[in-house]
Amino acid sequence: MVYQPPTGARDLLPLDVAQKRWIEERLQQAFHQWGYHRIITSTLERLDTLMAGGAIQRSTVLQLQGLDEEELGLRPELTASIARTVVTRMAEATYPLRLYYNANIFRRAQETSHTRQQEFYQAGVELLGSGGLLADAETLLLLMDCLQSLGLDQWSIVLGEAGLTRSLLSVFPATIQATVRQAIATLDRLALETLPMSQELRDRALLLLDLRGTPAEVFQKISSLDLNSTQQTALDNLKSLIDLLQNISHSPLATRHSLVLDLSLIQTLDYYTGIVFEVVSDTPNGRQVLGQGGRYDQLLGLYHPQGETAPGIGFALQIEQLYQAIALTNQIPQHISTSDWLVVPANPQAYTAAIAHAQQLRTTSDTVRVELDLGGRTPAEIHDYAQHRRIAAIAWISPDGTTKIERMTK
Amino acid sequence: MVYQPPTGARDLLPLDVAQKRWIEERLQQAFHQWGYHRIITSTLERLDTLMAGGAIQRSTVLQLQGLDEEELGLRPELTASIARTVVTRMAEATYPLRLYYNANIFRRAQETSHTRQQEFYQAGVELLGSGGLLADAETLLLLMDCLQSLGLDQWSIVLGEAGLTRSLLSVFPATIQATVRQAIATLDRLALETLPMSQELRDRALLLLDLRGTPAEVFQKISSLDLNSTQQTALDNLKSLIDLLQNISHSPLATRHSLVLDLSLIQTLDYYTGIVFEVVSDTPNGRQVLGQGGRYDQLLGLYHPQGETAPGIGFALQIEQLYQAIALTNQIPQHISTSDWLVVPANPQAYTAAIAHAQQLRTTSDTVRVELDLGGRTPAEIHDYAQHRRIAAIAWISPDGTTKIERMTK
Repeated sequence: MVYQPPTGARDLLPLDVAQKRWIEERLQQAFHQWGYHRIITSTLERLDTLMAGGAIQRSTVLQLQGLDEEELGLRPELTASIARTVVTRMAEATYPLRLYYNANIFRRAQETSHTRQQEFYQAGVELLGSGGLLADAETLLLLMDCLQSLGLDQWSIVLGEAGLTRSLLSVFPATIQATVRQAIATLDRLALETLPMSQELRDRALLLLDLRGTPAEVFQKISSLDLNSTQQTALDNLKSLIDLLQNISHSPLATRHSLVLDLSLIQTLDYYTGIVFEVVSDTPNGRQVLGQGGRYDQLLGLYHPQGETAPGIGFALQIEQLYQAIALTNQIPQHISTSDWLVVPANPQAYTAAIAHAQQLRTTSDTVRVELDLGGRTPAEIHDYAQHRRIAAIAWISPDGTTKIERMTK
Repeated sequence: MVYQPPTGARDLLPLDVAQKRWIEERLQQAFHQWGYHRIITSTLERLDTLMAGGAIQRSTVLQLQGLDEEELGLRPELTASIARTVVTRMAEATYPLRLYYNANIFRRAQETSHTRQQEFYQAGVELLGSGGLLADAETLLLLMDCLQSLGLDQWSIVLGEAGLTRSLLSVFPATIQATVRQAIATLDRLALETLPMSQELRDRALLLLDLRGTPAEVFQKISSLDLNSTQQTALDNLKSLIDLLQNISHSPLATRHSLVLDLSLIQTLDYYTGIVFEVVSDTPNGRQVLGQGGRYDQLLGLYHPQGETAPGIGFALQIEQLYQAIALTNQIPQHISTSDWLVVPANPQAYTAAIAHAQQLRTTSDTVRVELDLGGRTPAEIHDYAQHRRIAAIAWISPDGTTKIERMTK
């Protein structure tokens, strides 16, 4: 049984790696262009670090066994780790801090899941130390720049406001608030219609569920509610953000891409305090969430010894989902890079000359790929191999160093 | 306590990441130039997969808890995972396969260790499907090319032959063979002098311990032993390999670098069947192993459903140790990349113009870095920030789009 891969393991063969790198390099270029710097945190974290934000449940974390002093788990996302690192190890840094990651995450396969995959790849950013309109706008614009750099153009952004939605939920009695929140998070209309509550509260719950659509539609619907000043401020900020995004002429939102405002967008548990968003691809295969993010202005304080907090906002993109969306566009590499040269010594007396020739070819360019033939094959077999591997040329080397170049036809 | 990093965790801050990438990009370029393709295997493996080769002990593996069906651990090295993947998932591939990796590995911190670090970074190659002289030579030459590409020139290669050494150990009675092997692996002369065995065997054991030095010295010493034909063939192959390496004019071994032949080089447990080697840096801070590798011609068979095997050879370089060696050379980056531009809107009415200007700047080059000022600071504070972050220029944007460029002095 040693030859079995672990259940749910996914190995990336060279073509998979080339496709993953194609995506990651484009994202990385966008992150760099916007002034973000990469950070790599520990793959293992204390369980209390991972769960501090309230968004992660113990049952989803792959935990290590037999470590007496501390409970460790494999990170299921990066934001908690980055918050911990920034607060504890970058205390001297000046804000704003623009950080990005390109990392694997782990989630325990759930019994109900149709896949048993446990390891996933994410790339994302965290913009720390700045609240306000411009930081929110930068995050969403960078997200859209990432999608554009991948050549994706069939997507929409679903935008919510976790602080506002949470505040609108506060009118529900404490006994049913969590249930109402869950029903709204999962769009469970039936639950709202059957929960014991007054008709007025039921109407309010159903209205919250329906606060989705174009910004104009949602702002119209919400105007029927009697908002307090905090709620009104959150709503005004949301309006300013949407105005700004739609007024930027190079922004995809100014042209063909859709922005859905969704004030029912809330997770059952999360650490978000302001805007929250998902980017959803619209493909012939259906709707898929490519990434998500939001503002978390209390999270850093959880990791600070004295509880000092700083605003933060970020997003994570799912590399596998991006790949699925891009695979339909035919832009991503369909072959691994082939070798430019196969250098073949005629016999053992030609080994030194062949090795020297191969090394000389490698000095001609940083990107040239030169393979040495390792023996044990006839010239015909070598020829077939070069053809099969789509190698551009063969250099046949004689013991005296004489070289015969054979260009392969494609 | 949520703000504590896990014991032994190491987070890589942006400068650490830049330094790690500096090393990895150079290694990657060498791997590409030699025709190697990257593979990414699952971070989690079945414990029986990890331990199949006999080189990994259960106590060193970080194991996951509560997975009923299978015991999973975090990989402590990559060779077993790549062997499993190649045999089970790349059965259609033509040999030779040239694969490389750039990955994290995990080892349970031992009580006796002065560091508690559990996560490490490695880059390495596996050359599969080719035995023989040229494959051995390619592996060692590529290893030296990697060191040269990093600007390292204070190192030596210690070369052994695991098959030959194991065979020379076979004359010892089964009851003490493991102990003799361990004593030789750990250079424990005292153990060999006190173990119960005949004087003849003791002399043989002490001779094995002393089979270290220049190739000429070692070949001289071993000539006193009565070798069987298999042992003689292994010795002849080793001589051919050393001759070849020393005859290649561009090879570092032909010039100032030293090759130490060490037929006592053997691990207590391992899967190596042919040459084994370590690359050791000679620094003012002492001797440090930068990487190691060897030939394993039986390993792939362990993962094949029908036991079919194929030859393999590879090496792993330790990124942390490479960093320590390179840090002394002053070549590695000492600062993170700074932004080329800080774009500052004069007031909220200038947001749209500032965002557009920043995006326009980003189109001027793939590598330009442009930060947007996110508000909340006075012009003097912005100025200080730009100076502190060593940003090259500030673009002050007025609501009407007028731009004032201020170049910062270094």
